[in-house]
Amino acid sequence: MKKSLGAKTILYPTPVLIVGTYDAAGKPNAMTAAWGGICCSSPPCVAVSLRKATYTYGNIVQQGAFTINIPAEKYAREADYFGMVSGKKKDKFAETGLTPVRSTLVNAPYIEEFPFALECKLIQQIELGLHTQFVGEILDIKADEAVLDAKGMLDIEKVKPFFYAPEANAYYSTGKLLGAAFSIGQDVKKK
Amino acid sequence: MKKSLGAKTILYPTPVLIVGTYDAAGKPNAMTAAWGGICCSSPPCVAVSLRKATYTYGNIVQQGAFTINIPAEKYAREADYFGMVSGKKKDKFAETGLTPVRSTLVNAPYIEEFPFALECKLIQQIELGLHTQFVGEILDIKADEAVLDAKGMLDIEKVKPFFYAPEANAYYSTGKLLGAAFSIGQDVKKK
Repeated sequence: MKKSLGAKTILYPTPVLIVGTYDAAGKPNAMTAAWGGICCSSPPCVAVSLRKATYTYGNIVQQGAFTINIPAEKYAREADYFGMVSGKKKDKFAETGLTPVRSTLVNAPYIEEFPFALECKLIQQIELGLHTQFVGEILDIKADEAVLDAKGMLDIEKVKPFFYAPEANAYYSTGKLLGAAFSIGQDVKKK
Repeated sequence: MKKSLGAKTILYPTPVLIVGTYDAAGKPNAMTAAWGGICCSSPPCVAVSLRKATYTYGNIVQQGAFTINIPAEKYAREADYFGMVSGKKKDKFAETGLTPVRSTLVNAPYIEEFPFALECKLIQQIELGLHTQFVGEILDIKADEAVLDAKGMLDIEKVKPFFYAPEANAYYSTGKLLGAAFSIGQDVKKK
């Protein structure tokens, strides 16, 4: 028998998604969001939920495009900063010294120093309440050569992603490998 | 300058969400999904994307309810198993020996042995392509006393959640605390 904690938005892990956009004047912006994730395999899609009050919300609606950048653990401070101030008031790239690079397939910037980014075309905008969910079709992933393995695939141990824990309100690093998916459950299956 | 990897569904971390449902006959089922996450703060909502072919898809449509269970690291094998077989053919609770408990607020079972669960009422069903996204309003969180801290809040270091890494196709544990959110970026802000 479990204890009731009430209606809260807690789930572990939630990702640290840095949403890259351009405003109407072409100024690049980056903001941090934890409400989101992959939402469809075909077409490949990612969802991210934003409040209407954010600068990024207006940018996505105007441009119909955004990037989702995955920060490495060593950029936890910058990732946190991107979630603390508004692009309405600040040039967050100038303040962090990070580099916006124009995506090749959509009109949105990715962050050069972060290990990889998803280039997304807005395909759905869903009103949920305080948050609006933007669904983007992933047109490409751009990654640093340095985080790829010998087969040219992303190596999570080189990416060093981290995650956000709601309620604890803290960031945690990636721990150890527990096992291969669609594999470690095999012997349960044979019981 | 980054390298193009093509249009893929890669994002780190993705969660390990065990979706609990009842079928029309009242048989409890559990399936694993990685495409999902919190999607709105108010009303508190969680999204999970499923293929129409899954048993859980039909159960959610019929019952208008589901739970999202967060497994502890020690249940990685069972979590993997729940993603490998269909509830159409198997009684996955019987096979794993885990215990379904009827939720108090929705017609869906949560898993007694897992640290916590979200009780969800289906409020939106969005067709995205191969996957359908179900948005559930979180009516309550049910948690084990053993994973709460002195204030009665979830203690992530007791929960011991883990995550799924697409492409690597592997599970990783929670690592070390990197810092407090809305805090470690403060000095970037003051630059």
